[in-house]
Amino acid sequence: MAESLKTEIDLSQYPHINKGLAGIVAFSSNKSFIDGEKGELIYAGYDIDTLAENASFEEVCFLLWNNRLPNQTELDDLNTKLQNSRELPQPVLNYIQNTSKNAEPMAVLRTAVSMLGDFHKVEADDTEEFRINKAITITAKIPTIIAAFDRSRSGKDIIEPLNEKSTAFNFLYMLNGEEPGEEAEKTMDLCLILHAEHGMNASTFTNRAICSTESDMYSSVTGAIGALKGPLHGGANQQVMNMLLDIDEKDADPVEYIHQRLDAKEKVMGFGHRVYKTMDPRARILRGMSKQLSEETGHTDLYEWSEAILETMKSEKDIDPNVDFFSATVYYSMGIKPDLYTCIFTMSRVSGWTGHYIEQAENNRLVRPRALYIGEKNKEWVPAEQR
Amino acid sequence: MAESLKTEIDLSQYPHINKGLAGIVAFSSNKSFIDGEKGELIYAGYDIDTLAENASFEEVCFLLWNNRLPNQTELDDLNTKLQNSRELPQPVLNYIQNTSKNAEPMAVLRTAVSMLGDFHKVEADDTEEFRINKAITITAKIPTIIAAFDRSRSGKDIIEPLNEKSTAFNFLYMLNGEEPGEEAEKTMDLCLILHAEHGMNASTFTNRAICSTESDMYSSVTGAIGALKGPLHGGANQQVMNMLLDIDEKDADPVEYIHQRLDAKEKVMGFGHRVYKTMDPRARILRGMSKQLSEETGHTDLYEWSEAILETMKSEKDIDPNVDFFSATVYYSMGIKPDLYTCIFTMSRVSGWTGHYIEQAENNRLVRPRALYIGEKNKEWVPAEQR
Repeated sequence: MAESLKTEIDLSQYPHINKGLAGIVAFSSNKSFIDGEKGELIYAGYDIDTLAENASFEEVCFLLWNNRLPNQTELDDLNTKLQNSRELPQPVLNYIQNTSKNAEPMAVLRTAVSMLGDFHKVEADDTEEFRINKAITITAKIPTIIAAFDRSRSGKDIIEPLNEKSTAFNFLYMLNGEEPGEEAEKTMDLCLILHAEHGMNASTFTNRAICSTESDMYSSVTGAIGALKGPLHGGANQQVMNMLLDIDEKDADPVEYIHQRLDAKEKVMGFGHRVYKTMDPRARILRGMSKQLSEETGHTDLYEWSEAILETMKSEKDIDPNVDFFSATVYYSMGIKPDLYTCIFTMSRVSGWTGHYIEQAENNRLVRPRALYIGEKNKEWVPAEQR
Repeated sequence: MAESLKTEIDLSQYPHINKGLAGIVAFSSNKSFIDGEKGELIYAGYDIDTLAENASFEEVCFLLWNNRLPNQTELDDLNTKLQNSRELPQPVLNYIQNTSKNAEPMAVLRTAVSMLGDFHKVEADDTEEFRINKAITITAKIPTIIAAFDRSRSGKDIIEPLNEKSTAFNFLYMLNGEEPGEEAEKTMDLCLILHAEHGMNASTFTNRAICSTESDMYSSVTGAIGALKGPLHGGANQQVMNMLLDIDEKDADPVEYIHQRLDAKEKVMGFGHRVYKTMDPRARILRGMSKQLSEETGHTDLYEWSEAILETMKSEKDIDPNVDFFSATVYYSMGIKPDLYTCIFTMSRVSGWTGHYIEQAENNRLVRPRALYIGEKNKEWVPAEQR
């Protein structure tokens, strides 16, 4: 009887299900604009090409938190605050040093950011100034967490952060144990700028949903890290690199390799995007950077394979590469381990997440959609021993 | 010029913004049905009154994970698995013992659950059986985390979980250091049943959004804890109790106290719900339980105040109490500290979250809504020193 109730539901009367919330406008926002047809991306008024050419990551952070660029005094002040906030509390360092060396770096980052919240004072979390300072604290500490875990799991000494220099410089210094050259710093800085913000993607959306309960910023960033970790979101760049390394290991022809994947209906990572119908502008910028780096470092194979794969995907499937596709080869050329790529994405995207948190908190409504119930009703209780 | 671009946007052409996603159907689901007009709640076929009268929390877990009730063998097997999964890995215990004693219990729970994920094997996370086992592991360990932190922060020895007895019994035993009576166990079990699942609320939704990136269950539960922590969501029951304690401390008349709050346009916690237009059926069940407990324990003041507040809110604002309102007095009567109430909510709701994770993973689409950009465009770059 219960079963018949289920089947009697008139399917034509079902409300429309917005699966994946595709096309649903969930919020209004000052943070970024994407024109997927034209391949255009704007952060709070400024085209991504303008920012890539002129800005530093720290200026982009200020922009995303304040909806305007800082003057020189404000920028100096922000840099000082970031530099002075890089150190981790001892319990967080203890955790990083003592957890499993086989843990996923994104899992460790998620836990460490959550742990920072243990020292968070709830009552003070209700002014914009306080929220910006919290965003500075979290943004400053994430590179330290990533570098500390990578060195600790490799049996190397953890390197304390510098209280000078840019986010990009300091991260590479803590990761490698030596000061990066100007080119490496600039490349990392540019990668941080390109990944900082991108509309209502799954992690930013998760972050706003958590904020909408009036929960704290550590909760929202922790949740967003969990979302970014997924292979359909930030985890993709790591998978692009694994694919390229697989081609290398098998000594395969990259074009044939891609054809085989397509024939087997397997996914080729780093292609296509829910929003862009043309090449992602970030992929365009990274493509140029990848070419330049491959020439400088001699890793020309990887760049050439990437181009061959790109052409194959365009001619076979008419889809373009996304931001993950070329960021993989850029990070690889810089000698960074593939399982840290999504962590570097986090290092950057935290600026956008916290910007959205600030925006959501100022004009909040609890996120509470509905689900269409497709189960049964009125089932009668039968005791366990009679089931 | 940039400013004029902003103001020239034709407001009538804005897409409709679904603020808070109110009324948007985000998923189809077998997990629960809510009729807000009638005050009806169904978990996977069974009315909440039927479950409250007959089921154990563990049976409800099985129901939410499998969309059917277990037979006796399956229920015994689930109980054994839950009992054998209660212990925490040593690094998680170390963290709980060494973090700040002033940390919010929900922050510690968020971190500890995230940390469990360090020992998670990614490659095995893709079958329903594996997902159900993961749900069992997380559900079994959450009560241990809560009790361990509460005892540790109070300077008491942490009590190891029993590998027998119900979730409710074991939790009260670990929390208080002595075996609970039959009535206390039954009350706690009923509270766990009532809070297990409730449609597309903010934390369940957050959990599904994280799952939709193909991220792991630790990530989704950690994010959901962050969402539940917010005062507009699970944090409300703690605030109800703080309000009642404030009335007590000020020796105030509860009806006058509520009138003062309403006159000052302050929120009265524990009333109203986005979905229910009549009394929440869980509030109805808890109200009866609260009355009974208050008589048994002699805490009649609290119950009488609650009734007086309920009448005042009904006559002044025509709104009904929600699940948080009476759960507060029930937990208080059981001698549980107010800042643990949202943790107990988590202990229960994790069954619904993980049920939704299993459902989402089986028929996934990445959650990726849009935002309406209301900022400027085409702003020209001005160097910092000229700003």
